[in-house]
Amino acid sequence: MIHIIPKNHDKTMRNIRLDLEYDGRNYCGWQWQPNQFTIEQTLKEAIEKLLCNPIKLYSSGRTDSGVHAEQHVAHFMSDTTLKQKNLLGGLNSILPDDIAVYRVLDMPHDWSARYNAIEREYRYTFYCNPYPNVFFKPWTYHVKYPIDIEAMRKAAKYLEGEHDFTSFRSTHCDADNPVRTMLELSFRQDGDLLHFCVRGHAFLRHQVRTFAGTLLEVGLGRLDADAIPGILAAKDRHKAGHTIAAHGLTLVAVRFEGDHERFKDEKRPLRFP
Amino acid sequence: MIHIIPKNHDKTMRNIRLDLEYDGRNYCGWQWQPNQFTIEQTLKEAIEKLLCNPIKLYSSGRTDSGVHAEQHVAHFMSDTTLKQKNLLGGLNSILPDDIAVYRVLDMPHDWSARYNAIEREYRYTFYCNPYPNVFFKPWTYHVKYPIDIEAMRKAAKYLEGEHDFTSFRSTHCDADNPVRTMLELSFRQDGDLLHFCVRGHAFLRHQVRTFAGTLLEVGLGRLDADAIPGILAAKDRHKAGHTIAAHGLTLVAVRFEGDHERFKDEKRPLRFP
Repeated sequence: MIHIIPKNHDKTMRNIRLDLEYDGRNYCGWQWQPNQFTIEQTLKEAIEKLLCNPIKLYSSGRTDSGVHAEQHVAHFMSDTTLKQKNLLGGLNSILPDDIAVYRVLDMPHDWSARYNAIEREYRYTFYCNPYPNVFFKPWTYHVKYPIDIEAMRKAAKYLEGEHDFTSFRSTHCDADNPVRTMLELSFRQDGDLLHFCVRGHAFLRHQVRTFAGTLLEVGLGRLDADAIPGILAAKDRHKAGHTIAAHGLTLVAVRFEGDHERFKDEKRPLRFP
Repeated sequence: MIHIIPKNHDKTMRNIRLDLEYDGRNYCGWQWQPNQFTIEQTLKEAIEKLLCNPIKLYSSGRTDSGVHAEQHVAHFMSDTTLKQKNLLGGLNSILPDDIAVYRVLDMPHDWSARYNAIEREYRYTFYCNPYPNVFFKPWTYHVKYPIDIEAMRKAAKYLEGEHDFTSFRSTHCDADNPVRTMLELSFRQDGDLLHFCVRGHAFLRHQVRTFAGTLLEVGLGRLDADAIPGILAAKDRHKAGHTIAAHGLTLVAVRFEGDHERFKDEKRPLRFP
């Protein structure tokens, strides 16, 4: 495969941004892997099929196998003369039913979905009921026993701000620096659903799922909320809770400078849940 | 396979009612078929596994391949001494993730889910937006072009009441009498979603999907709302619109005498959408 990485951007070259959503169940996450279906490969092949040219696809980040996205941002350089709305319609006609592009934009040549992102937001959803619900199953983690949400809120507060999150990242995480700043960890109840919202500039591997697993143990009374500072200080992955199932996790948004102003009049379609 | 149909109901024999929900995508509908996964077979095998005894399962009706259900009612005779809550928990621990029992009740011996049902309610959901939505895809029918909902409402009114619905049933429908009484055909908008609600005592094969297909043609301006009485009078399946995809259809409820009173204090969990 040939990757065309334009070195001298001429005037006809465009930096095309795609905002997409996906149901992650059938994919091994975002990043290309040999012999696996991934979102990156599926999207790249759709773009190349539409443009009849190879492209190199850049992304705002990776997602784990099975994670969903309401907004994942990617971009590629191309000299195509296709209009934005035709790129949008064309890509969706090629993409499978579980991946959809909902926005196409031309960005400055030096704009990067990865480096220009100022904030990422994730939502982990718990379905809290003694009995299963088949319609929420694909998007939620089922919690059969009563949970103490106030204890979970108290524990979550300790994780906000700047910390070394070694205890909350995968032992396979390849980031050099385990320090991250969490802007918000909050809980919102909606009937039987409990949404755990996490916002931060960037995240470590498995960080949100390990947050969710650890806070669930607090909610179930198996771990004290006040144990969190000690777990952070230990810098030991074995001290925190399980990394729970990916299918309850959704990448909700990737935010960029200027996006709020750019999309203020845009009516986003309804999303689940 | 041995079907035990108790002829002389003794006192220890119970008529056990199950209210269940399912995501129909992976099943060839309710009814048992050779070499196909069906809801009936999956539920029957789960009950037999739990009770270690063969049973005969009766149902409030059939559903097409791919149709979902928020309430499908089934029942079986058994002399099991298991409590209702243990039957409920036990069955859900055996059933796959896309079928769940949410209610277990003991009914009189002569009660039948099929013959005692006084009303069935279906919902067909259209997702109305130029671009696809991956999260609604499994439960909705995607309509890309603008539709005239008032014209659809007008056309639907002609289908209410008692009519010969030969034009709106499958040519393979095996019902002797094509006359049915429709209690309600209505539309409810919720953002980009348009819910088409149909209530009636009983339905013919493919009737709701053919209603949906025909009314969609009215909405798209391909058929005049006032053509409906002529289509009904023709008694010819070829005059009505297409039988559209089953995955947009959900069996919402099967209603029985006394259920309203019986469940008035029961908090049903949230359902989609």
